[in-house]
Amino acid sequence: MIKTRDGKDIRPFFEPESVAIFGSMNEFTGLGYGAVRNLLDFGYRGRIYPINPKQGHILGLKIHSSIDEVTEHIDLAVLITPAVTVPGIVEQCARRGTRAAIVVSENFAEAGEEGANLQRQLVDIAARTGIRIMGPNTIGSVNTANGLITNPYRIGYNKIRRGGIAYCSQTGVSGAQCQPLDDLGFQISKMCDIANKCDVNEVDILNYLVGDPETKVLSMHLEDIRDGRAFIEAARSFTAVKPLLIFRSARSREGAEASASHTGSLAGNDVVYDSAIRQAGAFRIRNWHEYWELPKIFISGRPSCGSRIAIIAYSGGAGVVAADAAIEAGLSLAKFAPHTVDRLTEIDRRAARNPVDLGPVLSAASDPVSVQRYAITAVLEDPNVDCLNIAVYVGVLAPIEYVTDLIAGLLNNSSKPVTIWLYGTKLQVMQETCRALEDIGLPTYTELETAIRALGMLVKFSMFKTGLE
Amino acid sequence: MIKTRDGKDIRPFFEPESVAIFGSMNEFTGLGYGAVRNLLDFGYRGRIYPINPKQGHILGLKIHSSIDEVTEHIDLAVLITPAVTVPGIVEQCARRGTRAAIVVSENFAEAGEEGANLQRQLVDIAARTGIRIMGPNTIGSVNTANGLITNPYRIGYNKIRRGGIAYCSQTGVSGAQCQPLDDLGFQISKMCDIANKCDVNEVDILNYLVGDPETKVLSMHLEDIRDGRAFIEAARSFTAVKPLLIFRSARSREGAEASASHTGSLAGNDVVYDSAIRQAGAFRIRNWHEYWELPKIFISGRPSCGSRIAIIAYSGGAGVVAADAAIEAGLSLAKFAPHTVDRLTEIDRRAARNPVDLGPVLSAASDPVSVQRYAITAVLEDPNVDCLNIAVYVGVLAPIEYVTDLIAGLLNNSSKPVTIWLYGTKLQVMQETCRALEDIGLPTYTELETAIRALGMLVKFSMFKTGLE
Repeated sequence: MIKTRDGKDIRPFFEPESVAIFGSMNEFTGLGYGAVRNLLDFGYRGRIYPINPKQGHILGLKIHSSIDEVTEHIDLAVLITPAVTVPGIVEQCARRGTRAAIVVSENFAEAGEEGANLQRQLVDIAARTGIRIMGPNTIGSVNTANGLITNPYRIGYNKIRRGGIAYCSQTGVSGAQCQPLDDLGFQISKMCDIANKCDVNEVDILNYLVGDPETKVLSMHLEDIRDGRAFIEAARSFTAVKPLLIFRSARSREGAEASASHTGSLAGNDVVYDSAIRQAGAFRIRNWHEYWELPKIFISGRPSCGSRIAIIAYSGGAGVVAADAAIEAGLSLAKFAPHTVDRLTEIDRRAARNPVDLGPVLSAASDPVSVQRYAITAVLEDPNVDCLNIAVYVGVLAPIEYVTDLIAGLLNNSSKPVTIWLYGTKLQVMQETCRALEDIGLPTYTELETAIRALGMLVKFSMFKTGLE
Repeated sequence: MIKTRDGKDIRPFFEPESVAIFGSMNEFTGLGYGAVRNLLDFGYRGRIYPINPKQGHILGLKIHSSIDEVTEHIDLAVLITPAVTVPGIVEQCARRGTRAAIVVSENFAEAGEEGANLQRQLVDIAARTGIRIMGPNTIGSVNTANGLITNPYRIGYNKIRRGGIAYCSQTGVSGAQCQPLDDLGFQISKMCDIANKCDVNEVDILNYLVGDPETKVLSMHLEDIRDGRAFIEAARSFTAVKPLLIFRSARSREGAEASASHTGSLAGNDVVYDSAIRQAGAFRIRNWHEYWELPKIFISGRPSCGSRIAIIAYSGGAGVVAADAAIEAGLSLAKFAPHTVDRLTEIDRRAARNPVDLGPVLSAASDPVSVQRYAITAVLEDPNVDCLNIAVYVGVLAPIEYVTDLIAGLLNNSSKPVTIWLYGTKLQVMQETCRALEDIGLPTYTELETAIRALGMLVKFSMFKTGLE
């Protein structure tokens, strides 16, 4: 049994030593069965208790008829049963000492008055017994450190890469069953869907993850904020140590109405949200793409100390796009030191300005790898350069190792923040190279503007932390 | 020989019956060789004349020592020779009656005073002889109808899908050697890189493509506009019949400086550009992603007649994001007719509003395909619905044919504009399904916001054309 700090602690949602799954254990259609299967497939390290009145065995596990039949302590209950049965089961779990329940079941506040009434019963049980409830209408949580996943759906892969990014959203579409997390290789610590937020909400998640040593950055999707004051307080404590990215949907009146009908929540004026997010020291991001892609800059292990960016491109046109993106991200273009200008002029006069365009010199070079190594080294060593964006082109001929070896060798001796903009002619090769570059700690993007924006955020966060902003 | 309308006609850049390639024909390092190889690989239907003083044979073709040695007429000359040799060769081509020259060679205005002087010689030759020049410092043109490609680099695929989208940019990084065009399956009519624009510029491209029956929409990347008045006039004529999308880089001062150093052009104040683009009736787009992805909405063959969108999702959260995006794209959420509400209420009360969330009903349905068919049909047939965004989820179990058959069957009887937002858990499966859906005429996006924005543009264009805006 986990020792919780107090009744409000939500650790068991992520670090349970035992999980009870309530739901249909039918091998073909049962969502309870699906949740048990996923726990096994993802290598969950704790004990698993399938619970269904029909009893029997699935996947080598005994099905208990109810939680009362289980003699061991249950840290986390996962409910995927008809809504009307949920309050009773949660009450039973609370009585048995379980401190956390994830209600995957639907048909609560999002479904009308009857459901709203059931949801109020859950709120009441939580208040009365101290059990914490995530959901209802959620896919629950993921913890890559212990293999926990409460998702009951077919996923198609059985591994989420472990790393420093936490994702918390308010919709199931951000879950593993809807996202190619394995292919994209995001390095994840925890994930959760707080959904209807009848009890556990964004403030609890912030308070928990701020102290989670596995989590280095949190990307959060919210439709509404339940308590603005509590949110700003929790978020400020969070952003004092870790970066926080917030993607808010339900910005429009129509979006807010749709939000009310699927989570039962009422979203407010977007201007108020914008102000709250700013006061909290968080980054407001614009869409799902950024929700997934931007956080990885913060787990690269390269601290930022200034906003002067150098851009290394193989195309003048790409350099222009990168320069625009840099300015729009609050960065400035580094002015190279005289020594650097001299070094770069040796290969080409046109390579001696920022953005560096290696295109012309490479197209005439007999040994292009040496030219790249020489130029990138010169720029990396320039004291006027704080961070870099480096283009990597993967054609069909050069093996992936050529690219990774070149870049890894160059960056080993520098701690300056770097993002890679990767482009090429074959999606499969591009994807494999992205993974290989991220394996050596380099945040890699196939969209140039996102690669630059990520650096802008890193710089702003370090300025925020050091009080310069 | 092509009959040109007048000396300014640029048809030979795209529709030559014969091409001469000037450059190194070395099998391993020669860019001239590369250009010839690509022409053959992409199935160019005209005659090809490799030209190099060293003579010999490559790829089954005789190398001529100069254009004077070629007895047949040459419609298009492609020069990939040292910059100093270029004016002489272009002059020679003009004398021989060739009306179009693509100068791939670098080291012109972008490279300093000496290059600028060479470029001025080209301008003079064009003015004096009437030969038209694209570039210098360009990768030239593509025409999928006749297999023309003047790109001298290794590409890694040998097919660009034929269709109604023209792409015109001011940088080589948009070329086939840097983009996975084959994998992404964009349906392309023409492509070109106008680069340094010593002669052929955006106005020529607009004037040519407006009359090109293969081209239904033009996506254009520009760093500068050479003659604002001529541009607005040409663009207005263009947008009176075909949509025009413009992505402008060199927006920032730093970007403009970088632009000057790679194309030799001087970009102006972005506010002026914004106004010119608006006056021209063109769409201003924001980044490369949109440059590639947005135009395909205009080749779907589904005309737009109104701005009332219906959104069909399998997740409440996605519906909210879609609703926000719709409002931001200038659309309004359709209010379903009473008959539609009745029909949808039969499957689920919560499916009877817009965005339609089929998630809850599908998760409980014994025959989800029937439910989807029923719901999508009801929405399609609603007279209050002008256009639709439909979510398609591709898991690991359902075969691609299941998705395409379902959607194709439903949309066959309707001409309302539709975009698909596709999501899933395996990149490869998602990519294949995107292609399959586009094969049946449905613009498909993996980013929800882009899928909605595309519909917004389609609606705006038809309003612009019908004079409602």
